[in-house]
Amino acid sequence: MRNTDHLYLQVAGGLEQMISEDVLKIGDKLPSVRMLSEEYGISMGTAFQAYYHLEGKGLIEARPKSGYYVRFNQRRFRELPREMAPESMSHEVTVKEMINSIYGDIALDNRKTVNLAIAVPDVSLLPVAKINKSVVQAMRQYKDHCISYEDSAGNPELRKQVAKLAFNWGGKIKPEEVVISSGCLEAITLCLRAVTKPGDTVAIESPNYFGIYQSAEQLGLKVVEVSSSPVTGLDLDHLKETLEQFPVKACVVTPNFNNPAGGCMPDENKKKLCALISRYNIPLIEDDIYGELYFGKKRPRTCKYYDTKGLVMHCSSLSKSLAPGYRIGWVLPGQFLDEVRFMKRMNDISSPTLTQAAMAHFLQHGRYEYHLKKLRNALHTQCLRYMQGIIEHLPESTKVSRPQGGLALWVELPKKINAFRLRTEAMKQHISIVPGKIFSSGRHYGHFIRISFGRPWNEEMNDALMTLGRIIRKML
Amino acid sequence: MRNTDHLYLQVAGGLEQMISEDVLKIGDKLPSVRMLSEEYGISMGTAFQAYYHLEGKGLIEARPKSGYYVRFNQRRFRELPREMAPESMSHEVTVKEMINSIYGDIALDNRKTVNLAIAVPDVSLLPVAKINKSVVQAMRQYKDHCISYEDSAGNPELRKQVAKLAFNWGGKIKPEEVVISSGCLEAITLCLRAVTKPGDTVAIESPNYFGIYQSAEQLGLKVVEVSSSPVTGLDLDHLKETLEQFPVKACVVTPNFNNPAGGCMPDENKKKLCALISRYNIPLIEDDIYGELYFGKKRPRTCKYYDTKGLVMHCSSLSKSLAPGYRIGWVLPGQFLDEVRFMKRMNDISSPTLTQAAMAHFLQHGRYEYHLKKLRNALHTQCLRYMQGIIEHLPESTKVSRPQGGLALWVELPKKINAFRLRTEAMKQHISIVPGKIFSSGRHYGHFIRISFGRPWNEEMNDALMTLGRIIRKML
Repeated sequence: MRNTDHLYLQVAGGLEQMISEDVLKIGDKLPSVRMLSEEYGISMGTAFQAYYHLEGKGLIEARPKSGYYVRFNQRRFRELPREMAPESMSHEVTVKEMINSIYGDIALDNRKTVNLAIAVPDVSLLPVAKINKSVVQAMRQYKDHCISYEDSAGNPELRKQVAKLAFNWGGKIKPEEVVISSGCLEAITLCLRAVTKPGDTVAIESPNYFGIYQSAEQLGLKVVEVSSSPVTGLDLDHLKETLEQFPVKACVVTPNFNNPAGGCMPDENKKKLCALISRYNIPLIEDDIYGELYFGKKRPRTCKYYDTKGLVMHCSSLSKSLAPGYRIGWVLPGQFLDEVRFMKRMNDISSPTLTQAAMAHFLQHGRYEYHLKKLRNALHTQCLRYMQGIIEHLPESTKVSRPQGGLALWVELPKKINAFRLRTEAMKQHISIVPGKIFSSGRHYGHFIRISFGRPWNEEMNDALMTLGRIIRKML
Repeated sequence: MRNTDHLYLQVAGGLEQMISEDVLKIGDKLPSVRMLSEEYGISMGTAFQAYYHLEGKGLIEARPKSGYYVRFNQRRFRELPREMAPESMSHEVTVKEMINSIYGDIALDNRKTVNLAIAVPDVSLLPVAKINKSVVQAMRQYKDHCISYEDSAGNPELRKQVAKLAFNWGGKIKPEEVVISSGCLEAITLCLRAVTKPGDTVAIESPNYFGIYQSAEQLGLKVVEVSSSPVTGLDLDHLKETLEQFPVKACVVTPNFNNPAGGCMPDENKKKLCALISRYNIPLIEDDIYGELYFGKKRPRTCKYYDTKGLVMHCSSLSKSLAPGYRIGWVLPGQFLDEVRFMKRMNDISSPTLTQAAMAHFLQHGRYEYHLKKLRNALHTQCLRYMQGIIEHLPESTKVSRPQGGLALWVELPKKINAFRLRTEAMKQHISIVPGKIFSSGRHYGHFIRISFGRPWNEEMNDALMTLGRIIRKML
């Protein structure tokens, strides 16, 4: 036994050194237990013990049906990015002008720019052939070949499939409780329009996806930002203070893998959040667009799961996991079903029949769960690779989030850096990043940037981060 | 010569009698000149003269490359529906509740209801096979198989094709001046959002498509209704008074084949309209969704054609001519290009990539002009058939529009009739119609209904109108 003890520690120690010296990089797959035993001439039991030891130290992790991966490199990580300070007043949103230049990146694919801006999985990670097949099947299956108008609430089969997806977080949803939208942003906007009127105040998690701030601005709403941790998400105490202080008519929260900060609210906090909004009787718009892209062992729950009064309006889409360009999202509007359905009608009558029918067919026949497993695995690896790249190439004092899901890293640069100027300089070198300021009403995160890891890591990405580091050092 | 004179008049007289006795019904195709000459044993010249004579009397009409059709039956037609009286105050819109029950009709196709409500061409009139082919081609042609996000302003090839379509009304539009939307209603809403803010006053043609009134209501706008004739469309004098009296921030007009009233502004009036809004510097939102569905010899012009200052925001779509369920519309926003593009981004980021690419392919390769010719011909015939059915089966005092394009008939019933109650009774007999009141802010047209003629005429339609007539007589 002693000898074996010694042996597994020896093997583990060797691996640990390789990790700390970056011979084995974050996200690298380790040899299988069998291969390790053969390589080192040890028993499979000893090999397993070595991995178990490293797993206990948090350096590697087992992923179900996939093997062991390098997870962490303690010495290389530094502080997490900071939260914003609580606000003392509500204000009008003023991010509009800042964002216009960013949106051009959305169709950058054909150009020579390294796109670290857009938060979608690369097309190579998506089941394109199966989706195409579903499109053809949809055209065949339907009597009118998907030419006619669809019901405003959406394709009946798709609503059924969306209701089924709710099982993943323990939800019991009927198809009639689903309203299909044109992506998650339309979903959130429909919810805002359903429960607010111009001049109302809404509480929005900060930082958060800029589309949400823009939507609130356009609807003539006042905003109070509620701070969010890059680890545990929404700050409940801050929200409570906000609700006491302001006449808040709705809250918008991204509890699972906030974009950009990456925080994920512990399920216990979600429960508390639901209790809080219930006490104040305030609708909660839950943006769960990244909920299925978790890196851990199981899907985090949603606020909707803890909703007893029908106050939670759960929004999500297939844009981050299946087909961004199909613009298929949905709302589970709880007690606001009629209002949301009405808003959808008024916005564009209904979403396209063909894309809905195709996605319904895919969810029914396309092995979505299998695809998601592969996608999560790939994104997890990419996340770790990009983190490592940032640590290697950006200045020492850079702080970076450690998201357990989603598609983006939240990076705090030295305070002197103006991230807007950085973007301008980076674009000259054909690198696109998103400045942090647009993830708020324009008053915070001036030296933050968001780096998306949706595209597989390669030399090009490495070079881009190296260039970015050079530009930042020059700016300092 | 005298003898020939006599002959053609004799033949024409016989035909005229057949028309007045409904042996030849409105919309019926007449024998070709050659066939007529053979049938009556007269020369082709005499046969031609007979038709020429009837055409001069307005009873029949020649359609290019198609032949002669029964156009009119003077004695059977009665008065046109009335216009509304000018308004003396602006007011908030209140049609919301009324419309909810109507929208269910949109996906009625699978049920046993005779749908006289929805204003789209029947699927049998649409080039389904060619559209399906274009979908498959689009998936093949694009590198990313139309899975990725599209540019917010739309697919570049589709914008090119839309710019080309503007040739039809003499427009010279660059692809960069086009913004693709999710159907015409989204287009109009984007325009309203681009040039107004809550509390502003807009002038809307009355009657007009209820979606426009709803959109204005939802945006918190005040509305002044401007009356419209079922023949010449918008009442320019009334608009002028309105602009003098109210702080109007935008006008919404459907110059070609107003839905529901069917009026078409003479091109001269469009020119005057543009001069008027230019003088007041007020944006004009032009809904030209029916512009291509003209029954006459040439396409009516648009207001955009006469726009010298970029104040006209021209909106249209493919929903009434090609694929309602694809939700493809567009705006030519003139000087408001940036604003409209921004609103589109904020509403749903972009329209779906696949449906845009498919429509672009169809417009390039699908012989759209050829399809339109066939469609116009079919709709013209259907229009006349439905008119005849209304005249035959509805009470004597019923007034009906005589549209020269579009998809709908505007029917004024005896004053006693509450069209909402009529709809309820008709639905019990599985007949769906649209009550007139929803085509305004809810204060006019209480005894009007809209009958759509998008579906080919058959016994079922005839029976439905007969039943409708019976219900109305019972209500009187």
